[in-house]
Amino acid sequence: MHPVHIPDLDEIRKAYAFTRAASVETPLLEAPALAARSGAARVFVKPESLQRTGSFKFRGAYWRVSQLSPTEKQRGVVAYSSGNFAQGLAAAARIAGVSARIVMPDDAPQAKRKGAESHGAEVVLSHHGDRPREEVASALAREIAETEGRVLLHPFDDALIVAGQAGAGLEAIDQFERLALPSPDIAFCPVGGGGFIGGVSLAFHYLKPETKVIAVEPAGYDGMGQSLDNAAITRVASGKSTICDALQATAPGEAPFAAVRHANVGHTAIDDTAVKQAMKLAFETLKLVLEPSGAVAIAALLQAGDEVSGRTVLCYATGGNIAFEDFARLIAA
Amino acid sequence: MHPVHIPDLDEIRKAYAFTRAASVETPLLEAPALAARSGAARVFVKPESLQRTGSFKFRGAYWRVSQLSPTEKQRGVVAYSSGNFAQGLAAAARIAGVSARIVMPDDAPQAKRKGAESHGAEVVLSHHGDRPREEVASALAREIAETEGRVLLHPFDDALIVAGQAGAGLEAIDQFERLALPSPDIAFCPVGGGGFIGGVSLAFHYLKPETKVIAVEPAGYDGMGQSLDNAAITRVASGKSTICDALQATAPGEAPFAAVRHANVGHTAIDDTAVKQAMKLAFETLKLVLEPSGAVAIAALLQAGDEVSGRTVLCYATGGNIAFEDFARLIAA
Repeated sequence: MHPVHIPDLDEIRKAYAFTRAASVETPLLEAPALAARSGAARVFVKPESLQRTGSFKFRGAYWRVSQLSPTEKQRGVVAYSSGNFAQGLAAAARIAGVSARIVMPDDAPQAKRKGAESHGAEVVLSHHGDRPREEVASALAREIAETEGRVLLHPFDDALIVAGQAGAGLEAIDQFERLALPSPDIAFCPVGGGGFIGGVSLAFHYLKPETKVIAVEPAGYDGMGQSLDNAAITRVASGKSTICDALQATAPGEAPFAAVRHANVGHTAIDDTAVKQAMKLAFETLKLVLEPSGAVAIAALLQAGDEVSGRTVLCYATGGNIAFEDFARLIAA
Repeated sequence: MHPVHIPDLDEIRKAYAFTRAASVETPLLEAPALAARSGAARVFVKPESLQRTGSFKFRGAYWRVSQLSPTEKQRGVVAYSSGNFAQGLAAAARIAGVSARIVMPDDAPQAKRKGAESHGAEVVLSHHGDRPREEVASALAREIAETEGRVLLHPFDDALIVAGQAGAGLEAIDQFERLALPSPDIAFCPVGGGGFIGGVSLAFHYLKPETKVIAVEPAGYDGMGQSLDNAAITRVASGKSTICDALQATAPGEAPFAAVRHANVGHTAIDDTAVKQAMKLAFETLKLVLEPSGAVAIAALLQAGDEVSGRTVLCYATGGNIAFEDFARLIAA
């Protein structure tokens, strides 16, 4: 499958039918406190933080690994990741009986490194210093792939990864139907390299095109937003400060970008202050632990104003991998 | 229905069929980190913290309110609660269009008081000073019932409440079956007055008697444990210190006690240190915010030792209503 292939409805359904057997059906939680605060009519949160390994990444990784050929499975896989894909891939590879080595930047949160190791992966640290961490880590992963003959997996720029993440969209659509509710007017989706929104936006595009999917990025890392505006992949300068460690990709992948263009998504950017507020509200009103990157959709809801007034909104809360001490430090600051 | 009536299988199924339409199907989360730490083969956590209003209490309250006669519904209800029943009843009464006044002790956590108010209840504070807070609050609730003609609802000593809480048992049984897993060997259940474990243990007793349900109480508040040992309701002295504010009942209710005896449950007690450890582990490995009372089943797992070695264990995480600052203070201490 070429990376810029756009998975069709049959493909994403097939991926979900396979992955759901090993993944958590994350609940659809209504959030009256967030509705009251934002002016939305109703707000629902889908906590992928409760997914196996603490983020949505397991869905795509599990589908990707399942599609390796028998010889590829024997060779093993290698990937780079700042943390959540590392954990998702580690768990997926273990279930499939595939060896996994994962390159992580040396400044990735320790909780994520330990998580990947606890799920059975061998973690190799990359040292980027002042260079872009994604480039340095990916170069090391390529080197390991060549030296050891492993299959190099990309955390998001892969049509099969996009197809796997679409399960979080199909599942939400199914949950709204089971509750006899119309599809939400707006779905806010966190965006790093775009794998998650790529899949989720395709699911809504094929089945519920009345739902407007909106890409949410940290200010300064709005590569997807700029790419959509320019109708071409646009890389932003790296190095800006954000507490959203999982959303520091400087440009969307080709596969996710093709998907989101096809699905006609919108975009917005949020700041760290709103993210911290969202983390605290998720803690107190939803009883959910969200890492900063996992809270950006709720931050976007809080910043939205008129756009959400009187509407039904779905917020994807994509991850919860954060140590308590880091969480407490962020909230106190 | 007499308070010591023991709901049969048809009754608890009927209650669940009604309440599930308005309640969250809380997920069944596997917890490999807790299995590794405790020596159990597999551990599953059912987070009722994600239930509507942040605890299991909504299930029983919603069923109880639904069973009021039309004239009782017009008269409205009154209850006393240290917090979680207050919120569950407030939400249940609002859905049913019934007026609710709720007596809360003046030292109940502010988050719980605000929660009850936000769900539409009118909160009346009781001032117990050195007297047992449950007795003082219940006396005030009785007074309001008499003065205003409201129906007095008890937070746990009511066979209909017990039947409603049983939904958390039926739901877990169904989830294990859907995952093609055998029923767990052990199910740890938090116990205050016993309403929750009364219902849950009946569900397992009727359908999966091979699962041993175990009552978990804070040390010093082991009224259920002592009552089981004595084969008669036994009240413990109140006034001991515990961080588990929702589990300070000094004796089980008659209806729950009848149910747990019928279902042949075991019992154990845990200390505050284990509860804090459980709260932190739930935060970091399950991404769940649990209040102290909601974390006692995980604390019991951590303290269990040989009893859980190699077994499959279910822990009910019954509530998550706690302010971030209170959570942080407890974990830091």
